[in-house]
Amino acid sequence: MGKQLFEIVEGGGVTTPKGFQAGGLHCGLKKTDRHDLGVILCEVPAAAAAVYTTNLFQAAPLQVTREALAEGGILRAVLVNSGNANACTGAQGDADARAMQANAAAALGVGASQVAVASTGVIGELLKMDRVNTGIENLPGRLRSDDQGSDDFCQAILTTDLVKKVSCVSLTIDGQQVTIAGAAKGSGMIHPNMATMLGFVTTDAKIGSPLLQELLREITNVSFNMITVDGDTSTNDMLVAMASGLAENNELTRSHPDFAAFAAGLQHVCVELAKAIARDGEGATKLIETVVVGADSDFAAQAIAKTIIGSSLVKSAVYGADANWGRIIAAVGRAGQPVNVGTVDIRLGDIVVLEQSRPIPFDEEKALEYLKGDTVAIHVNLNMGSGQAKAWGCDLTYDYVRINAAYRT
Amino acid sequence: MGKQLFEIVEGGGVTTPKGFQAGGLHCGLKKTDRHDLGVILCEVPAAAAAVYTTNLFQAAPLQVTREALAEGGILRAVLVNSGNANACTGAQGDADARAMQANAAAALGVGASQVAVASTGVIGELLKMDRVNTGIENLPGRLRSDDQGSDDFCQAILTTDLVKKVSCVSLTIDGQQVTIAGAAKGSGMIHPNMATMLGFVTTDAKIGSPLLQELLREITNVSFNMITVDGDTSTNDMLVAMASGLAENNELTRSHPDFAAFAAGLQHVCVELAKAIARDGEGATKLIETVVVGADSDFAAQAIAKTIIGSSLVKSAVYGADANWGRIIAAVGRAGQPVNVGTVDIRLGDIVVLEQSRPIPFDEEKALEYLKGDTVAIHVNLNMGSGQAKAWGCDLTYDYVRINAAYRT
Repeated sequence: MGKQLFEIVEGGGVTTPKGFQAGGLHCGLKKTDRHDLGVILCEVPAAAAAVYTTNLFQAAPLQVTREALAEGGILRAVLVNSGNANACTGAQGDADARAMQANAAAALGVGASQVAVASTGVIGELLKMDRVNTGIENLPGRLRSDDQGSDDFCQAILTTDLVKKVSCVSLTIDGQQVTIAGAAKGSGMIHPNMATMLGFVTTDAKIGSPLLQELLREITNVSFNMITVDGDTSTNDMLVAMASGLAENNELTRSHPDFAAFAAGLQHVCVELAKAIARDGEGATKLIETVVVGADSDFAAQAIAKTIIGSSLVKSAVYGADANWGRIIAAVGRAGQPVNVGTVDIRLGDIVVLEQSRPIPFDEEKALEYLKGDTVAIHVNLNMGSGQAKAWGCDLTYDYVRINAAYRT
Repeated sequence: MGKQLFEIVEGGGVTTPKGFQAGGLHCGLKKTDRHDLGVILCEVPAAAAAVYTTNLFQAAPLQVTREALAEGGILRAVLVNSGNANACTGAQGDADARAMQANAAAALGVGASQVAVASTGVIGELLKMDRVNTGIENLPGRLRSDDQGSDDFCQAILTTDLVKKVSCVSLTIDGQQVTIAGAAKGSGMIHPNMATMLGFVTTDAKIGSPLLQELLREITNVSFNMITVDGDTSTNDMLVAMASGLAENNELTRSHPDFAAFAAGLQHVCVELAKAIARDGEGATKLIETVVVGADSDFAAQAIAKTIIGSSLVKSAVYGADANWGRIIAAVGRAGQPVNVGTVDIRLGDIVVLEQSRPIPFDEEKALEYLKGDTVAIHVNLNMGSGQAKAWGCDLTYDYVRINAAYRT
């Protein structure tokens, strides 16, 4: 690994970087008494960036956030509700998302165009705006700059998620301590009562919005875009980053000597959040990591890694702790990418099962033991070029079917 | 529907068209005593055609069959074994596939280049050729031109399939009765102990090999290529058609007045077999039919129909009899095809759930009743153009996970 570019901040969260407060509360969108409305506030205008779902059907809050960021790439706050996705809700849905933005801006004392909004939950139902508005009024009183604020926010964005998902790193830039943190939610890719992937990154690094946007897109492609729970893509997926600049480093550029360290730290946060989402996939009992090397290009490696991780047959086999390399090579062969059919190596962890596309006898007991663990790594070497990629997913279990067959009724 | 172009032959099978015999027996590749070796023999040289899996990893028999057909497009026989896919078996696998072809040709008294071979079963294990060869020697004695021959053949090609899959139609061409029949197997798309989709079509129509090949490819695209059980594509998929010409119609050309009727009959046979495979998908409790109309093009409609039918969330919802249109519209939006996000209609059977992309209140009881049936139709109208397509699949159930988590051990 060479020099450690950043340090992991245990227990850190979105309020750890300088300048951020966060909070959450229950306003009544969820049936339980769990938090369903959360906010992150930056005490100064933050350079901001965002990436959105590629689904053609995009929920109302995405357009509102897009417009907010178009005005100079500055945000002061992001408001999130769970329990209702405000998707497929037509003109009333648009109006509700705008009202959320305007009301949060008024309550927090910032400009409306400086508030991003995000929603996750049931599709096709109108938001109970009376409850949302009451919640918004109470939010400023719940803002905290300590871990509790971060924790309340993390709670407020969850749906079927079983665990909160946070990650935090620190590094030194121009002699200043810089912190990068993130919170995320996601469990299935989409379903009307729950799900959607949402991510929120805060940092006190000084970096302009255009560069943050470029970096966020690049890093999304090797983190959030490389996970698959079930192959479905939500109408509401959104990742928002805010940089307060309060660490007072010299503004980051691509030629800044510590740019690589910042990018590595941001990538670590995004990859950790992405892996946490994959591990917490609906019904999952384990995380699957697929590593593809020796491909024709990184693009080819990515496509192959995602095809393997998305295969229901591979996912079922991992659930059953079955060292089923036949399903892995079949996935490699249908990924639509260049493959030399005679030179493929496959390992499960350290256990070699295929070399130069021919089966290698292996210790079934040892393989069973390995596959029963809570993390399973599938390594594929195409022995063609230098393209490589990692992707993450989870096993396919009875519980996935139970959760998704029955949730709406 | 207008004029009926063909009639369904109840109880017909691959031996119903004039000139065909078939048979099957147990040679010892399956652990049970079920048939695992089958053959179809044509008493005259048959004009033949075939389509193969798109997976880059192709099992040995596919290459042997490809070469056989390259020599003039004529076949006398097709030999099939189940229990072993002869895939990822290297040079020995190639030699074994060629030995199967040569030995079958000798036993049946036909030229080796007139025998196609197909295999389905476990990947990466060598065929027990002593058992295969003994089976081949006994096959001529099991050939029959009646329904029993067809039945024995259908049994011999099954793996995890629960039911035999046959279809037969007849029509009149130039005053002659022409019969088209097919047999198929398939349950999961690929897994080492079982699975793969194989299809075999026989007809006594007089048609040249090049036209039969064109037609087979066109019809495969709207039948076998429009089904999805789990999104995985086998290394062994193959569809072979043989036309004996013994019906003595004038040779079919695209300008023959009955060409459309023949194509419709062949398409019916292929669609029926494809639907039977989808309905018999591993763990399935019901057939799902997705109909997409009003798309920009047929290609777009096909991609959208297959995205819907392949969605684990849609499949789980249908298993749970959940009228979950949110998952359907999310699948429409991620299919990578042009969609007007404001004009989508969705029906479940006759129950309208979305109109112009807005939810329509519907009777949940009635929807539950409909979704509990053994066939569920999802209709999507994009209201954009005249592109249309149908696709077929099945629900995702506990049993799919059970079958695929545990089968190899």
